[in-house]
Amino acid sequence: MTHSSRRASLSAALHAADLDAMLVTDLVNVRYLSGFTGSAGALLVYADDRPALLATDGRYRTQAARQAPDLQVAIERAGARHLAERAAAGADRIGFEAHVVTVDGFDALSAAVAPGESGTGGAELVRASGMVEALREVKDGGEVALLRRACEAADAALTDLVERGGLRPGRTEREVSRELEALMLDHGADAPSFETIVAAGANSAVPHHRPTDAVLAAGDFVKIDFGALVAGYHSDMTRTFVLGAAADWQREIYQVVAAAQQAGRQALHPGARLCEVDAAARAVIAEAGYAETFSHGLGHGVGLRIHEAPGINAAADGTLLAGAVVTVEPGVYLADRGGVRIEDTLVVGGGPSAPTGFPPELLTRFPRELTIC
Amino acid sequence: MTHSSRRASLSAALHAADLDAMLVTDLVNVRYLSGFTGSAGALLVYADDRPALLATDGRYRTQAARQAPDLQVAIERAGARHLAERAAAGADRIGFEAHVVTVDGFDALSAAVAPGESGTGGAELVRASGMVEALREVKDGGEVALLRRACEAADAALTDLVERGGLRPGRTEREVSRELEALMLDHGADAPSFETIVAAGANSAVPHHRPTDAVLAAGDFVKIDFGALVAGYHSDMTRTFVLGAAADWQREIYQVVAAAQQAGRQALHPGARLCEVDAAARAVIAEAGYAETFSHGLGHGVGLRIHEAPGINAAADGTLLAGAVVTVEPGVYLADRGGVRIEDTLVVGGGPSAPTGFPPELLTRFPRELTIC
Repeated sequence: MTHSSRRASLSAALHAADLDAMLVTDLVNVRYLSGFTGSAGALLVYADDRPALLATDGRYRTQAARQAPDLQVAIERAGARHLAERAAAGADRIGFEAHVVTVDGFDALSAAVAPGESGTGGAELVRASGMVEALREVKDGGEVALLRRACEAADAALTDLVERGGLRPGRTEREVSRELEALMLDHGADAPSFETIVAAGANSAVPHHRPTDAVLAAGDFVKIDFGALVAGYHSDMTRTFVLGAAADWQREIYQVVAAAQQAGRQALHPGARLCEVDAAARAVIAEAGYAETFSHGLGHGVGLRIHEAPGINAAADGTLLAGAVVTVEPGVYLADRGGVRIEDTLVVGGGPSAPTGFPPELLTRFPRELTIC
Repeated sequence: MTHSSRRASLSAALHAADLDAMLVTDLVNVRYLSGFTGSAGALLVYADDRPALLATDGRYRTQAARQAPDLQVAIERAGARHLAERAAAGADRIGFEAHVVTVDGFDALSAAVAPGESGTGGAELVRASGMVEALREVKDGGEVALLRRACEAADAALTDLVERGGLRPGRTEREVSRELEALMLDHGADAPSFETIVAAGANSAVPHHRPTDAVLAAGDFVKIDFGALVAGYHSDMTRTFVLGAAADWQREIYQVVAAAQQAGRQALHPGARLCEVDAAARAVIAEAGYAETFSHGLGHGVGLRIHEAPGINAAADGTLLAGAVVTVEPGVYLADRGGVRIEDTLVVGGGPSAPTGFPPELLTRFPRELTIC
């Protein structure tokens, strides 16, 4: 059972951290460890072999039983508080997700684990931020398979869009976005993995532009950043096109970004420092004189969330792990003129085809050349 | 200016609460008060007439300037911390959103407002949970207009779907969901307002079922819970149909839910206690012997979030305010057989057409009869 083996990994990590149990309240972490996808719920996992316990509210009684058939389910309106009380009856040190639990929520949990009136019982809530996220950083085989399917759906949709002439002057950003999203569903996606970015002309200089009724024109950059969601797993890819003939300035910044992206991908060795991966790509952009225009980090992990660990940026001080799935997405943005971003999703370590751990497996395979439509 | 008048309302509330300023970190609240829709940002609002300050990161420099032209914008990676530091230089009591700020985040803010090494300066962080949400509970005219458009798009889409025979045996839940979502976009929606629920046959007994490849069959209940998003505002409506002839048990529970829903709508008077509105509908279901099967609250506020204040349920002890926009959505769910929910979105107080504050304005107008396709 995938979920039970993930919970076993968490139990081992709890034991190593001298915790007796952990109260998991981040819903994505709950899903990762249990399979339950409802919008309200919490999970209690013990460091020893006591069975985990899922809590959710009455709306999800049937769904929880279906999705987590191997778990006891408590139906409670305040699930996390209920689990905290249960935990305090048999655990002294209970980890909680301090990066997720709010200040108000912490008060409620503290009350739930406080000693009884006689002063007996009671437990300590211990910060355990990022423990489940650390497990999620390295994908198991089933996860990579789902990420591969998500990336394939996105690749196929963009291929269809281009082949049927969907990128042409006269269409609006919104029309292109909508067609691309429909094509992803045709290719097996459950949904887009985030709000599709289609940014034409000067809008392409806005890194996270939302599609408008702006009309695509000849000579425009068209930057498309999008992904497919498959069984909870997200793909993420950006391609930038020119409609018609590219101007010199467009070719120049495109080549700079393409070279930076290649440098970033080539730095994706297991064990590489995250900030050095960022630096490898950033240096190419800086040498070309565009350092100021690359205003975001190089990449991020992708999985059950579109953005997850590890962050790949100048301030990141960890290292890349084999089995992490990350994006590499440098960009150059010239305000009021246009911008280019090129982004792929890759599996660090590359699997069996990469016995040395390099190259990484490229999950997004749509061509990366400056395609001129 | 809408946003500046909303900030003025917040300033007045801060003054009344003896706060000098408030650090707004909930992104929906930031949007409500500034117009900025980026995925990272924070807003500092003072109780006096000092100008508000928006902080976001480099990705959103251009967007923030466009969307919040009347605000100073600080470009900072850790925007909330930056604003907390700025606030501490000129304010003693700073409200923060304790229902949004995490335990880890609170540590960072506390460090930012701590006195300097000389012991000078410094400020106190004061819980101010729900202050902006309380303002958001009563919609202004512009908000009601957007909610009306969102509900109209949903109505028009469902009308089209039914008229073109989109609900018929042989189609899958997923196909119906996809067609309905496409029709909402045709009618002006920016996106679905949440993941569309299409639940056929026994699946209709799952209150929050997600569409699958299950095939619609003659005699099935088909429960559709969906909405449109327009400029950030959500609509929410549920209709339940029978394909072909309804069985007696289907007619029975449908009539019970319809009567309960009518009772709930008739209880929507400004000033009514929320728990009594819930009780008005729940009593109808209980009298018919189905109390156990109505496992969720009667309704909720709708606006920039699909679920917001006020919650209408048995535990809610506030009162309904004129200008609130809420759903009324009782349901009866018979496990392994099928379920019915009927849901509308309404404006409490009803506007100029309701000089006595009743009836509420119905925003979702699709017929509520047991339509047999």
